Amino acid sequence: METYLVLKDLAIIVIAAKLFGIVARKLKAPQVVGEIVAGLIIGPSILGWVNQTDFLMQMAEIGVILLMFSAGLETDLKELMKTGPIATLIACAGVFIPLLLGAAYYMLFYGISPWGSEEFYKAVFVGTILTATSVSITVQSLKEMGKLKGKVGTTILSAAIIDDVIGIIVLTFVIGFKNPNSKPSTVIINTALFFALALVVGFISYKLFKYLDKRYPHTRRIPIAGLAYCFLLAYVAERYFGIADITGAYVAGIILCSINDSSYIERKVDVNSYMLFGPVFFASIGLKTNIDSVTGGILLFSLGFVLVGLVSKIIGCGLMAKICKFNGNDSFKIGVGMMTRGEVALIVSQKGLSAGLLEPVYFTSVILLIIVSSIATPIILKILYSRDKGENEVQAA
Amino acid sequence: METYLVLKDLAIIVIAAKLFGIVARKLKAPQVVGEIVAGLIIGPSILGWVNQTDFLMQMAEIGVILLMFSAGLETDLKELMKTGPIATLIACAGVFIPLLLGAAYYMLFYGISPWGSEEFYKAVFVGTILTATSVSITVQSLKEMGKLKGKVGTTILSAAIIDDVIGIIVLTFVIGFKNPNSKPSTVIINTALFFALALVVGFISYKLFKYLDKRYPHTRRIPIAGLAYCFLLAYVAERYFGIADITGAYVAGIILCSINDSSYIERKVDVNSYMLFGPVFFASIGLKTNIDSVTGGILLFSLGFVLVGLVSKIIGCGLMAKICKFNGNDSFKIGVGMMTRGEVALIVSQKGLSAGLLEPVYFTSVILLIIVSSIATPIILKILYSRDKGENEVQAA
Repeated sequence: METYLVLKDLAIIVIAAKLFGIVARKLKAPQVVGEIVAGLIIGPSILGWVNQTDFLMQMAEIGVILLMFSAGLETDLKELMKTGPIATLIACAGVFIPLLLGAAYYMLFYGISPWGSEEFYKAVFVGTILTATSVSITVQSLKEMGKLKGKVGTTILSAAIIDDVIGIIVLTFVIGFKNPNSKPSTVIINTALFFALALVVGFISYKLFKYLDKRYPHTRRIPIAGLAYCFLLAYVAERYFGIADITGAYVAGIILCSINDSSYIERKVDVNSYMLFGPVFFASIGLKTNIDSVTGGILLFSLGFVLVGLVSKIIGCGLMAKICKFNGNDSFKIGVGMMTRGEVALIVSQKGLSAGLLEPVYFTSVILLIIVSSIATPIILKILYSRDKGENEVQAA
Repeated sequence: METYLVLKDLAIIVIAAKLFGIVARKLKAPQVVGEIVAGLIIGPSILGWVNQTDFLMQMAEIGVILLMFSAGLETDLKELMKTGPIATLIACAGVFIPLLLGAAYYMLFYGISPWGSEEFYKAVFVGTILTATSVSITVQSLKEMGKLKGKVGTTILSAAIIDDVIGIIVLTFVIGFKNPNSKPSTVIINTALFFALALVVGFISYKLFKYLDKRYPHTRRIPIAGLAYCFLLAYVAERYFGIADITGAYVAGIILCSINDSSYIERKVDVNSYMLFGPVFFASIGLKTNIDSVTGGILLFSLGFVLVGLVSKIIGCGLMAKICKFNGNDSFKIGVGMMTRGEVALIVSQKGLSAGLLEPVYFTSVILLIIVSSIATPIILKILYSRDKGENEVQAA
């Protein structure tokens, strides 16, 4: 095979992502929005210069892994412990409200169907697609604004991680009703086992890395070993426990976030991320889309689906945050930060497709939700944070 | 497709490459040797943990591109101008002596065949495989020793680049005799056109980068734009001019080597290189090998082929260097530095295969040459340079 052909795609992606990223920043929007739009423009929807390939998908996967690893490395462990219980509540509300509203919307659109019927499961499945937050866009936006480590940032991140886990359990339950091969109990056990393993292995590897770091501080082997560790945990999570690989990468980052060189590892990972893997990941969201296949009926359904998807997360997570004594603006930020959907929604859709619970045409709705939420979240978050600053300035004056 | 599966391969490669790299350094050999051996051990030949995949091949390609780009960025342009004419002479000797000796060895082994016969072209083709130096291993070894910028280092690099070009012309001539589709004249014109284009476009883009660099010094956009530029030039070289992409990447580096932030770009590219792409590239050389397929007769031929391959470059380049007034030790270094073979030899072999000039079984010989030369070159170079130090110390005392 002609391996050099990938160079063209990479060059176009890197240039377009950077250019549109700069334009986005000039328009006061976060850079990631520009990078996603870049993918949309150079992709099959508009210019057709770059098409989604296996290679780009794999590069994008590494990109999102690096992003989550780096988010884990930046975690303030004490803050996470503090936010843990509240994050769990927010995550639960953020799963069940979208699940309910999504199913209700499907029934509203196509007519109410009796409990247990084929159409009923399809409706539940549409709700299921809406459950899993994809936190990578939010992470990147918070990072750009320097807000990742704050209380709101940590709460969003923890809630998104927990929400992934709950979302996967829900998915397995829903599919389990149709497919006797997939046992909900196995999923729960696997998930519990993974986190138990993460605790034990995490503790041992934390000690090992701490020793390594003390003996060879600031040497290349520290970030290299960290990266390999992240890949391994991500792989093991998905391969042996059925947990998303990005969750494994995030956990790897959390395990290493308290060693002395954690910020040294993070800086090195970051260089890899912003030079190549990051732009490929964000652009690939735009690349996946083909606007041509959208018809009138699907478009109408999709618009409502997107709206329900966004609003249900804001209501679910935002209200729960408010109940948990966040102020109004911070609750809104948490709701908005949780409303992004990404690769997990696509993975869920793919599973539904193979289980006969979803028709391929609804992929457009999911992709539209991913794009709209990926573009809207960073913009709204930025506005909400700048409102904070306004208030602070007023207070300071 | 399950994109997360690549994570396992990458984790194993990164860990094994780093471990064996450290072991190699402890044994006073350069790290790259360890990385190649790591690929051999984890690959299908021994443990079978990692197999060559399209994805790994593409990652390896990016790895060698980054390596050559970084070598170009480190170039001292004045030194290159100074070494140019001599490097051309060394390159010519380094192409024609291996071509002659390789063909002679084939005839010695399988019997002399008349001028123009099928067997005659096969013999010439075996010589052709031996012509192209693959300088990436040498670059990495010289880099590790801090000798890349010296007179010997620059001479080797320039000679290897020129030798690639001559090698490709020879290949096209040899294939042209059998295949009426490939015109030697086209190749020569294309090559000339590429370098003319590199001069013109290079000058314009140099000015552009210099302006960018002045306006936004030390910002992320500089290395990102540099990387995209490198990918683009590498792609254009191979796609439109039939020149190896690595040559394009090296030229891109040379074009940017005089801007203020060239070392800033180089550092960022280097992080990408040593964290992931570099280990994948070096390990993939070992991965390509399958020791099982080797039989007695081929093994015997291969041993002689490897010997002829190594010695002919040392004789050709070393003697020419000596004629060009290098001292004995430096001439030897140049000969040894030029004797590594790599992906170009494989590409040439693949072309020969499709032109009916080479049987698949000889791939083993080529791979053996790549491995032996890749392992031997860094070790011998290190010994030769340490001998220098000995002499200098004697002089200093």
